[in-house]
Amino acid sequence: MAKITYNSWLQEHKRPFGAVLVGTTIEFDLMIQTNHQVTVNIVLQFENGFKSYEKMTAISDGIFRMTLSNLTEIGYYNYYFQITEFDDTHEYRYFYGATEIGGGPGTTYVNEISVIPYTQTIFLKREEAPDWYRQAIFYQIFPDSFARKGHLENPKDNIFFYGKETDPPYYIREGNGDITHWTYYGGNIAGIIDKIPYLKLLGVTSLYFNPIFEARSSHRYDTSDYMKIDPVLGTEADFKQLVDTLHQHDMRLILDGVFSHVGRNSKYFDFDGKSGGQGAYQTTQSPYFDWFTFNQYPDDYKSWWGIKDLPTIDKTKESFQQYIYGESDSVLSKWNGLGIDGWRLDVADELPDDFIKGIRDTLENYPEQVLIGEVWEDASRKIAYEQHRKYIYGDALHAAMNYPFRDIIIGLVTSEMSPETAARKLMQLSENYPADVFLNNFNNIGTHDTERILTRLGENLTKLDLAVGLLMILPGVPTIYYGDEAGLIGHKDPENRAFFPWKNVNESTSKIYQKWIKIRQSAPVLITGNLSLFYSDRIFGLIR
Amino acid sequence: MAKITYNSWLQEHKRPFGAVLVGTTIEFDLMIQTNHQVTVNIVLQFENGFKSYEKMTAISDGIFRMTLSNLTEIGYYNYYFQITEFDDTHEYRYFYGATEIGGGPGTTYVNEISVIPYTQTIFLKREEAPDWYRQAIFYQIFPDSFARKGHLENPKDNIFFYGKETDPPYYIREGNGDITHWTYYGGNIAGIIDKIPYLKLLGVTSLYFNPIFEARSSHRYDTSDYMKIDPVLGTEADFKQLVDTLHQHDMRLILDGVFSHVGRNSKYFDFDGKSGGQGAYQTTQSPYFDWFTFNQYPDDYKSWWGIKDLPTIDKTKESFQQYIYGESDSVLSKWNGLGIDGWRLDVADELPDDFIKGIRDTLENYPEQVLIGEVWEDASRKIAYEQHRKYIYGDALHAAMNYPFRDIIIGLVTSEMSPETAARKLMQLSENYPADVFLNNFNNIGTHDTERILTRLGENLTKLDLAVGLLMILPGVPTIYYGDEAGLIGHKDPENRAFFPWKNVNESTSKIYQKWIKIRQSAPVLITGNLSLFYSDRIFGLIR
Repeated sequence: MAKITYNSWLQEHKRPFGAVLVGTTIEFDLMIQTNHQVTVNIVLQFENGFKSYEKMTAISDGIFRMTLSNLTEIGYYNYYFQITEFDDTHEYRYFYGATEIGGGPGTTYVNEISVIPYTQTIFLKREEAPDWYRQAIFYQIFPDSFARKGHLENPKDNIFFYGKETDPPYYIREGNGDITHWTYYGGNIAGIIDKIPYLKLLGVTSLYFNPIFEARSSHRYDTSDYMKIDPVLGTEADFKQLVDTLHQHDMRLILDGVFSHVGRNSKYFDFDGKSGGQGAYQTTQSPYFDWFTFNQYPDDYKSWWGIKDLPTIDKTKESFQQYIYGESDSVLSKWNGLGIDGWRLDVADELPDDFIKGIRDTLENYPEQVLIGEVWEDASRKIAYEQHRKYIYGDALHAAMNYPFRDIIIGLVTSEMSPETAARKLMQLSENYPADVFLNNFNNIGTHDTERILTRLGENLTKLDLAVGLLMILPGVPTIYYGDEAGLIGHKDPENRAFFPWKNVNESTSKIYQKWIKIRQSAPVLITGNLSLFYSDRIFGLIR
Repeated sequence: MAKITYNSWLQEHKRPFGAVLVGTTIEFDLMIQTNHQVTVNIVLQFENGFKSYEKMTAISDGIFRMTLSNLTEIGYYNYYFQITEFDDTHEYRYFYGATEIGGGPGTTYVNEISVIPYTQTIFLKREEAPDWYRQAIFYQIFPDSFARKGHLENPKDNIFFYGKETDPPYYIREGNGDITHWTYYGGNIAGIIDKIPYLKLLGVTSLYFNPIFEARSSHRYDTSDYMKIDPVLGTEADFKQLVDTLHQHDMRLILDGVFSHVGRNSKYFDFDGKSGGQGAYQTTQSPYFDWFTFNQYPDDYKSWWGIKDLPTIDKTKESFQQYIYGESDSVLSKWNGLGIDGWRLDVADELPDDFIKGIRDTLENYPEQVLIGEVWEDASRKIAYEQHRKYIYGDALHAAMNYPFRDIIIGLVTSEMSPETAARKLMQLSENYPADVFLNNFNNIGTHDTERILTRLGENLTKLDLAVGLLMILPGVPTIYYGDEAGLIGHKDPENRAFFPWKNVNESTSKIYQKWIKIRQSAPVLITGNLSLFYSDRIFGLIR
């Protein structure tokens, strides 16, 4: 076989780099060193569609070119190369495609069925997020655990408050693992307002709140009422005051939109009959009845991951869409009207593309808003329920929560991943995402759903310094999970949701965060600059 | 066999009735109807000692008398009768003793080994309790659950507060049943002070508090420090204010003395090393080292009922006795000095007679104080650790918590016990206890260790009315368990420890309590009067 050279990341092989706006002309140059006669086809396939084999042109000795202007579908195309060599007596056919790591340099395959294709993103529209967002240093607040001002007030039935803010998080479970009573620290909006000067000093410019609407639990992902601030957090007036105060400080706020399911004891479902008796569980005449899917009414209903506490919403239902974003007095319109700056959509995989697009459309009235989705993998390639999701191809999300990014940083810093692998995975993301989305992505090294970064790094401050550094200088919008800067430790939920240690802030970790935030804020290139990477066995480097 | 008549409860058979002061002359008259020649012996045995057979005198036709002045041991004597009949050819021997129900009318036995003896109490000293005590209407307060004033303060590590006072009690347990975090309503001393007018209005004159010294748990039977008020309850100054306020209102207070064991994390044991490191678990040089019994130091130690959280104290140890009641700055002397009116000794069965006597001796300086013990059975006959306990024979307890009394009232009211059985059991108690102690006994129809009375009675208000009536008119000092009057329900611990329903007091149950308290307070005969009982198949009556 001939020696073949192709690297999707290099200008000499593919122009332009990475994802392209629909209609863009793309050139592919494959290089072959051989003494035989050769023909080369590029094999093209839109996602799971049919394959077409198109002959590439030999433009000079050993260089085969394909110029494509007809990639009109929004999504990604698979492509690889089919090479046919002839000698006097034989015809050899083989293939060149990507490796398991992804794009970049590829490899030769003998069997077509084994070929891992390269992929080419075609997007509908550039997603230039608002400047405030691109320039933001985000801070994620788990509202029950950040700060409290005043005494514990307005508890719900059958919850417990921790005696001390320093008590470690604990879930009260029955033998079967179900939580019987939710435990609250009682963090509230007044407490957050109080800590705005602290956040300003740290360098934070924007906040992302885990859910704040009325719910049973302290995480509040089991919404009881989308129209109400949870009473333990405070009132709508408190919330309005918070938004106004943030804006006075030139700070922004995005909220968590949890639209895939509701709490069983919400007004919409009303399992326990204590929420007015108009929920779908109580009566088939409920205005919310068609939001839910009953296999057998009322006890056998569809729920999120089979968790009966979280009945699933059928997001294709017009009345739900109207309630969340359609009506003039919809949920979105209410909170947007109070001045928030965007939404993070919980479990985006559970929300149909049309539903996300519906939300995005309503944000056209709020051009300064941003829409982010919770996606755990490369959001440009995510298959959910056998569908390739069009999260970031234009007119949907501005960005995804970038968990693959976290994996790479941690892998690199802990040496669990080689510099080469880390660099290639990063380049792969950079190639797959539209450039704007890549700069928009909501990067993190830890959230309410992961181990605390300090714990993940074995409480090693040198590694933390590196990880925070990478968070702050790589492309995307950095998000700090509350308390990470203060030295909080803990494995996954609930340990990662301890109360902010106001009386015991770790000076060493704080300094690390302050230092890197300053660096990010002093170098505009870190907001919009391209990314170049280099690596050796033991070195990982980047240029922006 | 001849017809024999003897009834220990009737003047014509035994004089005087019931328990006697040592040195009192007692007369027994046994009546026999027979045509044969007869001799009768009274068989006497002090507790488990030797038996003596003494010939009774035929004083008239068919009446045999024994007059005894030599019952000098303090405790109880067993006695029964041996009858020998002669005819021309034979001699018949048989016996007359008590029945399974106890004293009163007896029955004939053929085999001596089967005889259930009558018993005769001989006591050392009359225990006339102070007038205030005899006349008291007691109210038992479980301090965490009664009333709160102000916000939750001074929590310990790793406790939880209920969100609402109306939340049902709940224990947070691990899979093995161990409690991992104690749950608190946060009732406090300031709250109790606030409710004195309520208690006055109800007719209460005296309070008994479950433990109030510093502890880990919300029941506080796991003392951490005998010298401190639990910080969740308030300060020593709060306590002083409470005592003074009570006294201004002519009310009294007794405390719970929990001296059999301490909390594992007390300063005395210091299992977790967070209490100063001077506990016996931390160092064999601990000043408290010899209070505890280590099979293998430090992890294998003796604990109450094997509950490792409650290491047992060796109450025979001089240094412990000194600390509790001996030294000038002892535990008792501290709290007595603050003006309390007595003590209830927890698990009296675990406290050696000498230890109880030691405590009683110190109360000689406080003649208005009363000493009560927790005993679940007839305290005059209690055998604990193979020893007959001398709780109420003089110079020890003034009274016991009268749980047998509760069983009788409930049995009668629910018809689970016949009027005859109820009456005979009551008479038996009346016979066994010294008359003063019987009037002193600390009567209840429910405590922190039992089901709530309303629940026990199937929430039937007619039965509650009867039960409260009996509590108030039978001999002994009536004690109301907090909230019973307000309609609280619940099975045993923790259900019986719900917070007082201040916003939802049951008017019907309240009226029952108010009515019977008034009756008791308007009739001095109910304080000191004798008890006569009558009954038929369906009727139970009493005269005082």
